[in-house]
Amino acid sequence: MLPDRPFFDRLADAAKAETLLRFRTGIGVSNKLDGGFDPVTEGDQAAERAIRALIEEAFPEHGILGEEYGTVGADRDYVWVIDPIDGTRAFISGLPVWGTLIGLYHKGRAVMGLMDQPFTGERFFAAGGVTHYRGPEGERTLATRDCASLADATMFTTSPALYHGEIKTKFQAVEDKVRLARYGCDCYAFALLAAGHIDLVIEAGLKPYDVGGLIPLIEQAGGIVTDWNGGRAEMGGEVIAAGSAALHAEALAILRG
Amino acid sequence: MLPDRPFFDRLADAAKAETLLRFRTGIGVSNKLDGGFDPVTEGDQAAERAIRALIEEAFPEHGILGEEYGTVGADRDYVWVIDPIDGTRAFISGLPVWGTLIGLYHKGRAVMGLMDQPFTGERFFAAGGVTHYRGPEGERTLATRDCASLADATMFTTSPALYHGEIKTKFQAVEDKVRLARYGCDCYAFALLAAGHIDLVIEAGLKPYDVGGLIPLIEQAGGIVTDWNGGRAEMGGEVIAAGSAALHAEALAILRG
Repeated sequence: MLPDRPFFDRLADAAKAETLLRFRTGIGVSNKLDGGFDPVTEGDQAAERAIRALIEEAFPEHGILGEEYGTVGADRDYVWVIDPIDGTRAFISGLPVWGTLIGLYHKGRAVMGLMDQPFTGERFFAAGGVTHYRGPEGERTLATRDCASLADATMFTTSPALYHGEIKTKFQAVEDKVRLARYGCDCYAFALLAAGHIDLVIEAGLKPYDVGGLIPLIEQAGGIVTDWNGGRAEMGGEVIAAGSAALHAEALAILRG
Repeated sequence: MLPDRPFFDRLADAAKAETLLRFRTGIGVSNKLDGGFDPVTEGDQAAERAIRALIEEAFPEHGILGEEYGTVGADRDYVWVIDPIDGTRAFISGLPVWGTLIGLYHKGRAVMGLMDQPFTGERFFAAGGVTHYRGPEGERTLATRDCASLADATMFTTSPALYHGEIKTKFQAVEDKVRLARYGCDCYAFALLAAGHIDLVIEAGLKPYDVGGLIPLIEQAGGIVTDWNGGRAEMGGEVIAAGSAALHAEALAILRG
C-alpha cells in the first residue's frame, strides 16, 4: 500500500504543530556545528520525531532518512526523506520562507513530495504526475513557466556565499546571463518554481533531505531537476531546477563539469 | 487634525485591493528603465492612485511624495511618503516579502508609518510612540531586540550587488563581523527588525519612499535608524537600522565616512 495525500497531510500537520508555535519566539536555537552557524531549533527535532512516529506506525517496512535523526533502512524499496525545517536560518530570522519537506523515494527515485509553509498557510504536494497547491490563493494544480532563455529568466539561489572555486565561476557565468537574480529563499524558491512564478533555482552543497521532497513538486509540474551534470538529483550536491527544458539545457551547458 | 490608525488602515486596505489580486498573476510587468530591470506593475500604479485619492480628500493641505506619481507640496508641514509596492522584484517573483509603505513626515521627520504585507496578512503601524503588529500572530505591540554586538547579530540587506567602491568595502567589513547575514528582503527586513526577530538592516541607494514608512516602525519599537553618518534617514541614501544603540554604534563606527 502506498501513502495517499491525506497521509502526507497528517505528516505535515504533525510537523506544523511543533514548528509554528516556536516560530518567532526566539527560543531553542543552538549551534549544531562548533564555529559555524548551523542553528537547529527544538521545533526541527520535535517535528522530525512526530513525522517519523507516524511513518513507522503506518509503513514499518519503509526506510527513513531524516536531517535530525539519521537513516534507517536506506536499502529498502521505499525510503522517506525528511527535512522538518528546511531553511533554519530563515526560521530563526522570523522570515516565512522555511518549510517542512517530505519526500518518498522508490528505488532511489523521488516519486511523491510535499513542502509545507505553516505561517503563510501554503502546502505544495506532488503525486501521480500532478502538483497541487493549497493556500491563500485557494486550491489549484501547478505548472511551471515556459521561459525561453536565461536572458528572460528569474533565478534564485540561497546565497552567493555557497559557491567557491570552480563552481563559483560557473554559477556566476549563469547569474551574469539571467534577467533577475535573487538570494535567500531556501525551499520556498523551489515551490515558487513549481508554481510558475520563477524560472530557475541553482544550489550547491545540498543534502538529500534538502531536495528529496522538492523534486516531485517540480517534475510533476512540468519542470526539470538534475545535478550540474544532468544526472538525477536525489542525492543532493550541486542542483539545478528549471521550469522549461530550453532553460535547463542553456544553464546546464554552462554548469556541466 | 492628524490622521488616526483607522485612516492608515483605509489607505492600506485600498492599496491591498489593487495589489493582492495582481500578485502571482504574471501580468502587468514592464521595465521602467531601459537596460536595467526596474519592474513596475499595474498594481503599483493603481495602489498609489487609490492612496493619493484618499489622502487628497481627507488632508488636502498635506503634501504627497509617491514613487509612481511624484511630489506635490514638498514644502508643506505634513508630507505623505508612499511606496505602494516596495520590493517589486519580490512581487514579480511571487515572494511575499514586498509591502505597501506609507509614512507621514512632519517638518521633514517621519512621525507615523505603516507597512502592509497583504499575502501574509501582516500589518505594522507606528504612531504616538508605539509600534503595533496585526497578523497571523494576533495583535501585539512590538519591541526591538537588545543585541549586544555584531558578533551576535543577524543582519539583512537586499542584495550585495547594491554596493560598489568604498561603500562596498565598508559594508563587507560589517558583514564579516555579524553572526548571520541574509539577502533579499526589502521592506520586510525592516519589519522583522521592528518586531525583534533580527538585529540589523543595512541598505544603500534608498529613495525617501523606500524608508519613510519604515522609520517610525523601528524608532517607536525602540530601535535606531540613521544614514551611514549618523544623521536622519528620511531622505534615504545609505541607511542603517539597528535594534539596539550598542549595535548601531558598533556598525556606524565602520560605516561612517
